[in-house]
Amino acid sequence: MRIGVLGTGVVGRTLADKLVELGHEVRMGSRPEGNEAAVEWVRSAGDLASEGTFADAGDFAELVINATKGGASLDALQAAGAENLAGKVLVDVANALEFHEGAPPTLIVANDDSLAERIQEAFPEAKVVKTFNTVTAAVMVAPDSLNESTNLFVCGNDARAKAQVIELLETFGWLSGDIIDLGDITAARGPEMYLMLWIRLMGAQGTPQFNIRLVRGE
Amino acid sequence: MRIGVLGTGVVGRTLADKLVELGHEVRMGSRPEGNEAAVEWVRSAGDLASEGTFADAGDFAELVINATKGGASLDALQAAGAENLAGKVLVDVANALEFHEGAPPTLIVANDDSLAERIQEAFPEAKVVKTFNTVTAAVMVAPDSLNESTNLFVCGNDARAKAQVIELLETFGWLSGDIIDLGDITAARGPEMYLMLWIRLMGAQGTPQFNIRLVRGE
Repeated sequence: MRIGVLGTGVVGRTLADKLVELGHEVRMGSRPEGNEAAVEWVRSAGDLASEGTFADAGDFAELVINATKGGASLDALQAAGAENLAGKVLVDVANALEFHEGAPPTLIVANDDSLAERIQEAFPEAKVVKTFNTVTAAVMVAPDSLNESTNLFVCGNDARAKAQVIELLETFGWLSGDIIDLGDITAARGPEMYLMLWIRLMGAQGTPQFNIRLVRGE
Repeated sequence: MRIGVLGTGVVGRTLADKLVELGHEVRMGSRPEGNEAAVEWVRSAGDLASEGTFADAGDFAELVINATKGGASLDALQAAGAENLAGKVLVDVANALEFHEGAPPTLIVANDDSLAERIQEAFPEAKVVKTFNTVTAAVMVAPDSLNESTNLFVCGNDARAKAQVIELLETFGWLSGDIIDLGDITAARGPEMYLMLWIRLMGAQGTPQFNIRLVRGE
């Protein structure tokens, strides 16, 4: 598949590496063509890798992954172009964190709205699926690096888009029985707000290399 | 120990039952003395059980549990009386949920504040410890009803108060290694905001009988 990865940070590069490893053609998008991190990534990732502007990546892609910082995502997606997102699966993995001097981080959007909902509203013809934002990049692409299998969440308004994303997650090593469909895109409030617990758990444990596993009663 | 349980709902009654079973003297507090649910509970719970106003329960208690609805907690605690809470451990198990017609529930306070912080701020001489709000009442008192051991979170500003609460949790069946200290009272934002994921998980699974277990890497 041709996949556009928007964002050149750790999350974008980690996902792009894994996608190339799986045989996909990946174009990494950033604001300016020739972004240093993107050029460097292309050099290391080989023949299936290319880079360009957000619009280049959006135009190239059959499926788009938003791996930009949450606070910059709507601008990045506008730059990618609504026409380049229309009809396509748009996997939103971003967290809209805001950092403060001397106070805990907060979410830019929460409670009665979510980043994924804002993206879906701004790009009604895209098929937004929220996933992956509840684990650190290294765990996204190597779920078996944890001591037991753990859960991942998906949500979105389009059932076929979710099914396609679940298939992609399975190729990353996630077990289909561990991927929980939380419902429509409003459900993204759940995993997005969970981040505030995740941050405290990371602090308490001293590592981001963890995830949660649901345990049920009989 | 003499324990005051504020609130006569399922959470309050479930915790009060367990505390009586463990041999504590429990006074259930509600707005009016002679609250039907409280009187009924006293009848079923035996000699260690009593009931009264919020102030009666606060006055009686060495340790107070806030099991009122989150939206009513500050009023209930005012009624219990700052002088009856001063110097005592105040275990806050409440969730400040607001329900809406045709839209998902929201939290009354979230993101840059939390219910537990508001309580601590309103009652600076109480030693507020947030815990238990991440599981349904039946799981609070029977962690072994789930198929594996799971995690519980505590946070608060007073280390001795947290240690005392952890001891109490252990008598409920929680394993000390599974109880995670998230930090000071601002950390309550984490478990309180997690509730929005919990609600979606309950919906996806069709049961509130579950909890999460942290899985780490090597």
